[in-house]
This record gives sequence, structure tokens and C-alpha cells, in this order.
Amino acid sequence: MNCGKSVSNPIINRLPKYYRILCFLKKLGVRNICSKELGDEAGVSPSQIRSDFMCFGGEGLRGSGYNVNILINKISEFLGLNEVYNLAIIGAGNMGQALAKNRSLERKGFRVVGIFDTNDFIIGKKIGAIEIKSLDHLSEFVNQNHIDIAIITVSSTYAAEVINKVIEVGIKGIWNFSQVNVNVPADVVIENVYLSDSLMVLAHNLKNYKTASQFMP
Amino acid sequence: MNCGKSVSNPIINRLPKYYRILCFLKKLGVRNICSKELGDEAGVSPSQIRSDFMCFGGEGLRGSGYNVNILINKISEFLGLNEVYNLAIIGAGNMGQALAKNRSLERKGFRVVGIFDTNDFIIGKKIGAIEIKSLDHLSEFVNQNHIDIAIITVSSTYAAEVINKVIEVGIKGIWNFSQVNVNVPADVVIENVYLSDSLMVLAHNLKNYKTASQFMP
Repeated sequence: MNCGKSVSNPIINRLPKYYRILCFLKKLGVRNICSKELGDEAGVSPSQIRSDFMCFGGEGLRGSGYNVNILINKISEFLGLNEVYNLAIIGAGNMGQALAKNRSLERKGFRVVGIFDTNDFIIGKKIGAIEIKSLDHLSEFVNQNHIDIAIITVSSTYAAEVINKVIEVGIKGIWNFSQVNVNVPADVVIENVYLSDSLMVLAHNLKNYKTASQFMP
Repeated sequence: MNCGKSVSNPIINRLPKYYRILCFLKKLGVRNICSKELGDEAGVSPSQIRSDFMCFGGEGLRGSGYNVNILINKISEFLGLNEVYNLAIIGAGNMGQALAKNRSLERKGFRVVGIFDTNDFIIGKKIGAIEIKSLDHLSEFVNQNHIDIAIITVSSTYAAEVINKVIEVGIKGIWNFSQVNVNVPADVVIENVYLSDSLMVLAHNLKNYKTASQFMP
């Protein structure tokens, strides 16, 4: 069975987690894993694992479980991780610089090829080997270089305007680090990263732990 | 009805999103919102909104919906966002520096008070007003300053060791940016941030869009 394009978003959203865990297990020398063990690691039930993997042709063998290498390749292929993606960072502030210097993204096939900003004080400076260009030159740059994904690391104030510009020049993928939620056309895909959401959950759990421990003997 | 401590993790995980949307609506001058509108913004059903809000005493009025200000305060209180949290960043590399300079965290009550690293070349330098200290001094620092949360921005290779050290010196909250999944004791809370997970989902959706568009007229 192969669900192909009908794989639902919740399944797709779980695949990077499985991929991460499987790569970690591979490093440890693990060759096979059963749905129970992988489910325990991923925080989902064994039947969820089996049902998720059936959707893209990841089949286990009764007794020996899933082959870790095969599963990694299947997920890679399904998610499109065997390809190389060209990225342009829009906003060369702190987060933009951190992502530009992040080598682990490059190892996964996500290659930063352009960095843009509107601040005259930093335009012309370099981050690694890449010169920061004026945002006014984005259109020209996109005409000469294929860009798959724009990383939006400008402040919330300018985010909507910048995202519209990115769409206007024909970039189809947006990885949005601004706190702004922008509606995009149907032929553009966007993933929003809200860093502080998980910090708020952490704060809540921390507060609850404190409150609970006050009543401990 | 107030579910108090029995509020489930999925609900808690949705609250920061509601909080973000409500703060945005408040900025736009919106005073009241119904569950349908808020559900549309948050990508959940109106009945999910009503059920989630009942759990912490957020009550709407038939006809006029929820008061945005009251709801923001209720969620703030529930998540513990009215308090101030002291943060220590462990790992003063690119991501550590970006988070140290992030003013929006401070505005939410998350205040970086210490930055630590093991690299002699950067120990003693400053990020903003904070001097980078040797990780060897973490224990002494924690004895003199209350630290609620450690932000782990070291590379995966050292992450498990560093997290163990953080727990050993008594820090109870961990915001983990390394790609390593570490089991922590029951009295420690941890939130893992896997940045590249959403990039992988983006890659998949982008690839699927490309494949689909090849068959378009």
C-alpha cells in the first residue's frame, strides 16, 4: 500500500521526527527497530508507527522489524531530502546570521546562496562567503539564480511586506521566523516557526511543577 | 468549569498560538471575537476553541463572543507569562548569540542573565551587557543567581553532557536547541526545538507542489 499524495498533514509533520530518531539510531549502529521501540522514542503508539509507514511504502518484517537504513532512505525520498534546495535569507540580523552560519542545514541539502537586507550599514558585508545584498536586488538575483525557499528573518513590522515581495519575485517556498501569520497564494508553501511558543509551554510546565512541589513533604 | 491542573498537553500546546493571535488582534483594535473567527485564524474548529477555553475559565458571552483583553490575561496567567524568568544560555555560538540578542523574549518576561561557553577565545567577551563565562563557573553562578531555564545551544556532540551538568546544578527548566533528545528526571521540564523539522515539511510540500504543477495545463 502506498497512499502517495493523499498522505495527511499530521503524518507528514511526524516524519521529520521519525527521520531524526532513525538517523540517531543509525549513528549508534542500530540496524533494525520494531514499531514498539520506535514508537516509545517518538512518543506515539506502535500502531501509529505502522500505519504512518505504510503510507509511503515503509514495510517492516514480522520478527525483525524495520530496517533502519531502508526506512531513512524511504523517508528521505518521500520528504524530498535527497534534493538540494537553494535558500535566500531575507533579514541579516541576529537570527538571519545564525541560520546563514548553520552548517547542519547545509548537510541536509539546504544551501544558503543569497542574503538580503535593507540596512545600508550591513549591505556589502559578508557572512561566511556570501555578501549581504540590498533587498532591492532580490528580483534581479532570483532571475539569475533559482531560489527554492526564502527564509524570513526580518522583524514583524516588515514581515508581511517582505513576504509579499518574495512571492512577487516568484519564490514558492517560505520559512517564516517572523511572528506574523501571512496568507499566501495556493501555489506558495509557507512554514511558520514560532520559537517562543515552546518557551511559553516550558514556562507553564515549570510553574506547574513549582506549585505541585510546594505541597510535597 | 475550570479543569485546573488536569488540562491536557495538546490544549497547553495550543494556548501559545491562541495567545499570539489574540495579541495580534488586540494590536489591530479588535475587542471581541467569536469562537468561529478565532478558530478560523488558529486552524481549529469553533467547538475546539470553546472546549479549550472552558478549561481555564475563559468564558464567552452569547452574541458578543470572547473579550480579547480578558482572554489574553487568562491565558497569560494560566501559562505563567505574568512572571519573570531568568535564563542562562549554554553555548555562545551563532544561535546562542541570536537568542541572547532577541528583545522579543525579554518583552515576554524571559530575561537572559548569564551566558556560558567552553571556548577560551570567547569567554570574557560580551554579548550586549552580559559577559560570556566559563561553563566551569555555572554551578557557582547558579548558587548566587536564581536560574529558571537553561537554553542549550551547544552542538549535538556535547548536548547530553551539558544537559546533565545543567540538571546537576539544579536548573529545572531546559529549552533545548540541540538535535539530541535527552531523558530528564521527573522534576525537570524540557522543551526541544527541532528547527529543521519544519524545513523538511516545507521541502516535502514544495516538492509536491512542483510535481502537481507539472501536470497543470
